[in-house]
Amino acid sequence: MNPSRIIELLRSGEANQSALVQGWVRTKRESKELTFLEINDGSSLKGLQIIVGKDLPDYADIIKQITTGASIAVAGQLVDSPAKGQRIEMQADQVTVFGTADAEQYPLQKKRHSFEFLRTIAHLRPRTNTLGAVFRVRNACAYAIHRFFQERGFIWVHTPIITASDCEGAGEMFAVTAMDLANVAKVDPKATPNVANQSSQSVDFSQDFFGKPTFLTVSGQLEAEIMAMAFSNVYTFGPTFRAENSNTSRHLAEFWMIEPEMAFCDLEGDADLAEAFLKYIFSYVLENCPEDMAFFQQRINDQVMSNAEKIINEEFERISYTKAIEILLASSKQFEFPVEWGIDLQSEHERYLAEDHFQKPVIIMDYPAGIKAFYMRLSDESTDKQTVRAMDVIAPGIGEIIGGSQREERLDILEARLKAKGLDPEEYWWYLDLRRYGTVPHAGFGLGFERLVQFMTGMSNIRDVIPFPRSPQNAEF
Amino acid sequence: MNPSRIIELLRSGEANQSALVQGWVRTKRESKELTFLEINDGSSLKGLQIIVGKDLPDYADIIKQITTGASIAVAGQLVDSPAKGQRIEMQADQVTVFGTADAEQYPLQKKRHSFEFLRTIAHLRPRTNTLGAVFRVRNACAYAIHRFFQERGFIWVHTPIITASDCEGAGEMFAVTAMDLANVAKVDPKATPNVANQSSQSVDFSQDFFGKPTFLTVSGQLEAEIMAMAFSNVYTFGPTFRAENSNTSRHLAEFWMIEPEMAFCDLEGDADLAEAFLKYIFSYVLENCPEDMAFFQQRINDQVMSNAEKIINEEFERISYTKAIEILLASSKQFEFPVEWGIDLQSEHERYLAEDHFQKPVIIMDYPAGIKAFYMRLSDESTDKQTVRAMDVIAPGIGEIIGGSQREERLDILEARLKAKGLDPEEYWWYLDLRRYGTVPHAGFGLGFERLVQFMTGMSNIRDVIPFPRSPQNAEF
Repeated sequence: MNPSRIIELLRSGEANQSALVQGWVRTKRESKELTFLEINDGSSLKGLQIIVGKDLPDYADIIKQITTGASIAVAGQLVDSPAKGQRIEMQADQVTVFGTADAEQYPLQKKRHSFEFLRTIAHLRPRTNTLGAVFRVRNACAYAIHRFFQERGFIWVHTPIITASDCEGAGEMFAVTAMDLANVAKVDPKATPNVANQSSQSVDFSQDFFGKPTFLTVSGQLEAEIMAMAFSNVYTFGPTFRAENSNTSRHLAEFWMIEPEMAFCDLEGDADLAEAFLKYIFSYVLENCPEDMAFFQQRINDQVMSNAEKIINEEFERISYTKAIEILLASSKQFEFPVEWGIDLQSEHERYLAEDHFQKPVIIMDYPAGIKAFYMRLSDESTDKQTVRAMDVIAPGIGEIIGGSQREERLDILEARLKAKGLDPEEYWWYLDLRRYGTVPHAGFGLGFERLVQFMTGMSNIRDVIPFPRSPQNAEF
Repeated sequence: MNPSRIIELLRSGEANQSALVQGWVRTKRESKELTFLEINDGSSLKGLQIIVGKDLPDYADIIKQITTGASIAVAGQLVDSPAKGQRIEMQADQVTVFGTADAEQYPLQKKRHSFEFLRTIAHLRPRTNTLGAVFRVRNACAYAIHRFFQERGFIWVHTPIITASDCEGAGEMFAVTAMDLANVAKVDPKATPNVANQSSQSVDFSQDFFGKPTFLTVSGQLEAEIMAMAFSNVYTFGPTFRAENSNTSRHLAEFWMIEPEMAFCDLEGDADLAEAFLKYIFSYVLENCPEDMAFFQQRINDQVMSNAEKIINEEFERISYTKAIEILLASSKQFEFPVEWGIDLQSEHERYLAEDHFQKPVIIMDYPAGIKAFYMRLSDESTDKQTVRAMDVIAPGIGEIIGGSQREERLDILEARLKAKGLDPEEYWWYLDLRRYGTVPHAGFGLGFERLVQFMTGMSNIRDVIPFPRSPQNAEF
């Protein structure tokens, strides 16, 4: 008999149907005449209840081997369940024990464990209710992202992980090397007198694998722009890195990012895509993981469903940064960070706008040029309050979830912006070539995948929404 | 008017329909009364032919600006095309030039370029016919992989890129560090006398970001096994790294890999999945990229279609390694590498089996234990020809495309195997825990994504199937 996934039996199994299930025992309750087991195979939050009668051959021996965490296969008959909360259960005809789990040693006994403790056993925590639900939602969310873009003709592009570009300052980037760290090749000051006035410690990167300093990428955007200039609509979905020494519940050293990029698109089109994207992803997950989402609502954060519904059902408000500043100044609320035109909006400001003032998702557009990156398009009207075509999407209970911009497609302005930011246009030769040959208006946005999953599930620590988190002093598993 | 994707107009556009298209000019032919343009937006190999009549306002000025590589928008009427090879074309009513491309400087003029040259302009090569087709097929292939697994209830798991595990020997791994390479922290031999007999050069990794040596992953398999022990069926699809100094057409320092892992599965089930997987992926790409595949067949490698058809239509032959050796010994063929039981099969052996002997895909199973990794399951019958439950899938015109195994699920045997390979069981504490608590028979396989795309397209150099290849001395873009 072919094994069945438990989720399929729970959804559409019928009484009197024969079935074979395989999984791990979550609970066991013995009574005089029979034993109840709950078996889970990871396909759903709920397990299947198994009834093992005393008439099973070798009953005592088998039941003795089975404790929480044991792996078993059960063949039997589905029957209507008299118990509350489950439509069917299974009457066991045959039970096979694959692996036991010593009740004294197995760390996941029935009692509740702190998320902090569970992080120390990241190899076992996917077997718990919460982490199981998190990783199912994470998977649904990831697949929804691919479906959303593929249905719209976007090409998934794999931008490089190892990069020689140092767009955002080497301080926050990990270095990648094939050199022996105990014996890094150094430039010989005698052999190269023109570098003698540099530190004698200068690294001779010509000896390294790539012949130059290389880093782990912080964004695939610039390369995604290359691909958008050939395929019109593309997206990245891959790992990204920050060497920032932030030991908080909001930071990871390694995380996944999604970055769509669209040719022939302005900031308004970018905002349209961002809104459609969030509506699609949240709808898909609610539809495909209803039990997991109900679990988060009940056990983790009781705002999870209403936040999701606001994303799905409300038309996003769109306001300019200048308007946002006006609203904040007009409010009676006392902010920790004083409000004036030119500041970077803080979390408290964004929350006020989305949660108190508009009570729905808001897209803030056209930020001051001074606080934004070189590649964002300068607005056409040049005033003393010069803006760039940047946007942030903020949502109630969530805060900033997406950041994007229309890109500067004009060669001369882009070169001037690079220089103004102290960057060397020579190092951006290929990025500038995109503006030399067939340049077009284009736009895109980025979002951190773990932030998205965190918001969706209501999990308070980002380390609990990625299987094996990387953070300062932590690269275990 | 909303813009249309060119692929949609070519497939289902009707004469007399109004449309707006946006893209890059591939060719321009001027005649006395009109100009023919071919415009491509990356949605398909073929572009749309545009006819610009002299009656267009500012005709001369606009046509002068338009050269190969220029970006334009054209609004007009679709009309039946009298030309061969195209059903429809467009009569332009309005032409907007976004960006020019100086004909003297733009590197992609109409003439053919070598793939070697195109690699030096990886920021422009996606605009060529061949690379455009490659990256569309790459995208279809990647999406097909997600669909295949998601339809079967597999969970996509993101295994870590930065890892402290050094499973396959540090010699081939890139190191990751947040230390300044010019000034790597060293252990002070006076402060730590117990390491004084080591080199005074010893690196003090406690000063580094993760507090220990870290590397770029070479495989997500061990972590995928963790997840399979909770969700039954999982797969990875992410970047993987080798610091091997191989400057060949078959090696990349950074490439993407797919690794499914199944609980409650033996080697036969693993082989079933591998066969179904390849059939699905090749079918999906043939169905969704017919023009691109026809292009590869015609222009790149005339075996591409017959190789794909063998994968899709032939039942894969399954033989043991021992049987494979017998066939090779019985053949009259002279091999460069002598054949005897115990050798690792070379490419010439695999090709003989798949291309000459069976003339279809072959799955070779049960390899000698001595040439395989520690985690592969020892076969139950212990003889002087001890085997492990490993498999390789080889295909005509392709060679080895998939490697997999049933994993050793027995704690005592796994510990012994680790020690026999000179590995420290302490470092594999969590991997061994999976065998301590609820262990189950399980199996999986791995395949290199770029190898798959290379085989599918017939491209001879692996650097031409990834947008921005990483290889010795090469981390540009």
